[in-house]
Amino acid sequence: MIKLYWSPRSRSFSALWLMEETGLPYERVLTDITTGAQKAPEYLKINPMGKVPSLVDGDAALGEAAAICAYVADRYPETKLAPPPTDPRRARYLQWLFFGPGCIEPGLIQIFTKLEVPTSTAAWGSATQVFDVLDAALAKGPWILGEEFTAADIVIGSGLNFAVRMFKMVPPRPSFDAYIARCVARPAFQRAEKIAAG
Amino acid sequence: MIKLYWSPRSRSFSALWLMEETGLPYERVLTDITTGAQKAPEYLKINPMGKVPSLVDGDAALGEAAAICAYVADRYPETKLAPPPTDPRRARYLQWLFFGPGCIEPGLIQIFTKLEVPTSTAAWGSATQVFDVLDAALAKGPWILGEEFTAADIVIGSGLNFAVRMFKMVPPRPSFDAYIARCVARPAFQRAEKIAAG
Repeated sequence: MIKLYWSPRSRSFSALWLMEETGLPYERVLTDITTGAQKAPEYLKINPMGKVPSLVDGDAALGEAAAICAYVADRYPETKLAPPPTDPRRARYLQWLFFGPGCIEPGLIQIFTKLEVPTSTAAWGSATQVFDVLDAALAKGPWILGEEFTAADIVIGSGLNFAVRMFKMVPPRPSFDAYIARCVARPAFQRAEKIAAG
Repeated sequence: MIKLYWSPRSRSFSALWLMEETGLPYERVLTDITTGAQKAPEYLKINPMGKVPSLVDGDAALGEAAAICAYVADRYPETKLAPPPTDPRRARYLQWLFFGPGCIEPGLIQIFTKLEVPTSTAAWGSATQVFDVLDAALAKGPWILGEEFTAADIVIGSGLNFAVRMFKMVPPRPSFDAYIARCVARPAFQRAEKIAAG
């Protein structure tokens, strides 16, 4: 059975939400970051970064929250969380999956630290650009690819929920608020939030 | 035919290297970032971030360099650049694909700007941790997954080549030097470097 290593009130929320969306059976393995459990030698074999979440599925093991979303969605196509490789929507699906860790996360740190970086230097351009691009992409909705909810929404939705709704690091915008509300309304999101509260 | 939008001396190097590795026919569309071509309205429809690289493949279009690697490797399995979804190596493959934009890139900016961020705040932990983890992962080799070269090596290899060999932002280490030398020795890398020089 799939094992998900997680900790309350951490970035493992997106992986919890993912697993709740899939309907697949999975075991949650509490890896409490307040006790340093994520730095134990046995855990570092699963995730060398010593962070949560991690996922173990038989002989497969990985860290990086968005990579876990990509893995599960492709490994279990019956979950219908990813357009298949031959579907033209696959391209934007992957773009947004990578946009979470590659643009939203460093953009948030840039805001948090008031860091100035030339936009041509940072791979993500600038925090302003990141959230302007998201605003435009979410204007139509309901989901980041349009009608179909995918694992990319778990990555983008978790990022915006964290940045806008929970920590108020990014000012609200109508498109963000409506998108986050749609995410929050999903039963799987609500189950994950209850679990993540610890 | 696949169209790759690129600019000399830019982060589009990894996508050039990718396409040269695939052996697939593709058209290079010069999008000169020194003239602002990446901000033209027509281009923003392809890549809303106004950055290079971007890729158009029939009705599919996307930005984000690592996402382009993921897309091409799965869309054209004959290139043998990705373990299939049922292969246990798929998990680590995806972890390292996301590690490039999610950890190496922000880690580099952290070094460049001498930014201090609590390791539990940044999704990538710290720049020190990022490069220590890569060092351990590359100790065995020859490639990041072991014997098999994959698109993850294009992402990780481009990142290290940029950080260590070209811009010397990250101090050399024996594992990095040996890995970069193996990347540089690949004929596709050399063709890409020649193209990228403009």
